[in-house]
Amino acid sequence: MPIARSARVVGAPRIGVIGASRPSRAVARLAYDVGRLLGERGAVVLCGGLGGVMEEVARGVRETGGLTVGILPGVEVSSANRFIDLPIVTGLADARNVIIVRSAQAAIAIGGSYGTLSEIGFALRMDVPVIGLRTWGLIREGRRDRGIHVAATPKQAVTLALAAARRSSR
Amino acid sequence: MPIARSARVVGAPRIGVIGASRPSRAVARLAYDVGRLLGERGAVVLCGGLGGVMEEVARGVRETGGLTVGILPGVEVSSANRFIDLPIVTGLADARNVIIVRSAQAAIAIGGSYGTLSEIGFALRMDVPVIGLRTWGLIREGRRDRGIHVAATPKQAVTLALAAARRSSR
Amino acid sequence: MPIARSARVVGAPRIGVIGASRPSRAVARLAYDVGRLLGERGAVVLCGGLGGVMEEVARGVRETGGLTVGILPGVEVSSANRFIDLPIVTGLADARNVIIVRSAQAAIAIGGSYGTLSEIGFALRMDVPVIGLRTWGLIREGRRDRGIHVAATPKQAVTLALAAARRSSR
Amino acid sequence: MPIARSARVVGAPRIGVIGASRPSRAVARLAYDVGRLLGERGAVVLCGGLGGVMEEVARGVRETGGLTVGILPGVEVSSANRFIDLPIVTGLADARNVIIVRSAQAAIAIGGSYGTLSEIGFALRMDVPVIGLRTWGLIREGRRDRGIHVAATPKQAVTLALAAARRSSR
Repeated sequence: MPIARSARVVGAPRIGVIGASRPSRAVARLAYDVGRLLGERGAVVLCGGLGGVMEEVARGVRETGGLTVGILPGVEVSSANRFIDLPIVTGLADARNVIIVRSAQAAIAIGGSYGTLSEIGFALRMDVPVIGLRTWGLIREGRRDRGIHVAATPKQAVTLALAAARRSSR
Repeated sequence: MPIARSARVVGAPRIGVIGASRPSRAVARLAYDVGRLLGERGAVVLCGGLGGVMEEVARGVRETGGLTVGILPGVEVSSANRFIDLPIVTGLADARNVIIVRSAQAAIAIGGSYGTLSEIGFALRMDVPVIGLRTWGLIREGRRDRGIHVAATPKQAVTLALAAARRSSR
Repeated sequence: MPIARSARVVGAPRIGVIGASRPSRAVARLAYDVGRLLGERGAVVLCGGLGGVMEEVARGVRETGGLTVGILPGVEVSSANRFIDLPIVTGLADARNVIIVRSAQAAIAIGGSYGTLSEIGFALRMDVPVIGLRTWGLIREGRRDRGIHVAATPKQAVTLALAAARRSSR
Repeated sequence: MPIARSARVVGAPRIGVIGASRPSRAVARLAYDVGRLLGERGAVVLCGGLGGVMEEVARGVRETGGLTVGILPGVEVSSANRFIDLPIVTGLADARNVIIVRSAQAAIAIGGSYGTLSEIGFALRMDVPVIGLRTWGLIREGRRDRGIHVAATPKQAVTLALAAARRSSR
């Protein structure tokens, strides 16, 4: 049984979910719905491990399945929200954002904080596909940048992210 | 079933195993034996994810149970050894050592590379208990420092590490 | 004389300059002009230390005055461009972007790479003022975000950055 | 004049000084003396930027010459001691130790905290020469490890460190 368990983690898609610690109620709901859908598909979900979007997505995953990994900015494991299965304690403050993105095969960005913007920038730079739900729009040299794949619903976001993860060589 | 799986990760002891990428044959064998014993106890084992001690301990864990987490120094997930269940891709080079130690409830140091020494220093600084198997001895101001708990066998090392993890508030 | 030197570094404004390693010729020229103007004002200029915008700004600073600090992503000091006075070797890959931004009193973003976008996100998150020269435009929830102070010329960018640095409590 | 200043930083030896934030009085005095000697030689001195050994060495450097660089663990520049000329704000907690060591051509370890031990391990791993003053002794496989060059006095430590820096290709 433990072997089967490990095997499932090995084969599972690894999806990063990024978003603010103080989202609006609507954005928090999107995160929860994304979490439920990812959990149903048995994904390993990496997030920042704290509150807000990070907690809502982990709550959704916990209710359905999958594994939640919290890449924590601080030095205390107790800062993890209660839906984190595996806390990774970095002590790196915001630099830990890089790890969430690098470890994922695809990322879903929900809502619009500046921290989320930095993670979007990192992900696009590293060629990790980014699916956006009510998140930043980007203009480069006067034109809309098409780096973020805009999703209209949690379901579409999860479908796009899992498809990107399947294509990923990471 | 997926919920049960997550639950087990949640309750499992988190043990860091640190050691060199080019160990002697004897040290590699110690790592493998430590891995098997940790896996039998269902531990989440954190290591550096590369070869040598990191690979041998992960191989042991994979054969028995538990979950292996590889905190990788580079930017490529492909650098993980094949027994890593969950790769965490940091891109931080040696600074990733801090994360292995911070995320563990106790650490087992096997063998004597300088990288291992740096991890021992970090762990002792952060009050993460360190169990040593054929590893460094430390002298401070002319006297033997007692920070490292010396174990004579893999079995003793694992017993000491799991006991420390149970006492841990992390 | 060495004391006077240190004193000047102490009192000097610390300005981060962020931009791509492969800029267009026009963007490279903007970086060089920004560097010359910052150097004339005796600024300590922090950048990523590599080529492109990082090299052009450092070249400008070197020709006029100031001090150039290169926060390098790799493990080799030899990766620094030849206009870097003080190399800081991090080995952190892209996570070093955080350090450039955190150590500056104000940041000037030149041009539009994804790496630059991540640094803009970090800076705005940390309340480090960001002056933009031909850089990203940001749209949040359908409206233009006003976090970046748009400058029309290198001179305006430097004037805005130095004014922000003077107001900074950092 | 500013150009001459930059030129001096460029040619100057870069020496890391590592030691505890709460040293004994004797160890603090060693740090101060090391700082004065390094400053007289115009060195760029990198340290952790906080109190104790880090403050004493920076005080010594400030009184004589050179440049003090504080690689700070926290997110606030105000945590730097008052003798730091150039604060580098990392927010990386203890992982910033790696940067001190990587950026130096040689390191002087003073006194015996566990944090200092971790920096010694990193430096030896990266082939950065380590000169020790009343610091750790290391035993590997039953024998004294000779990685640390033991100095008897601040003067000897500085002489050894500067000679190592001259030989350094970094």
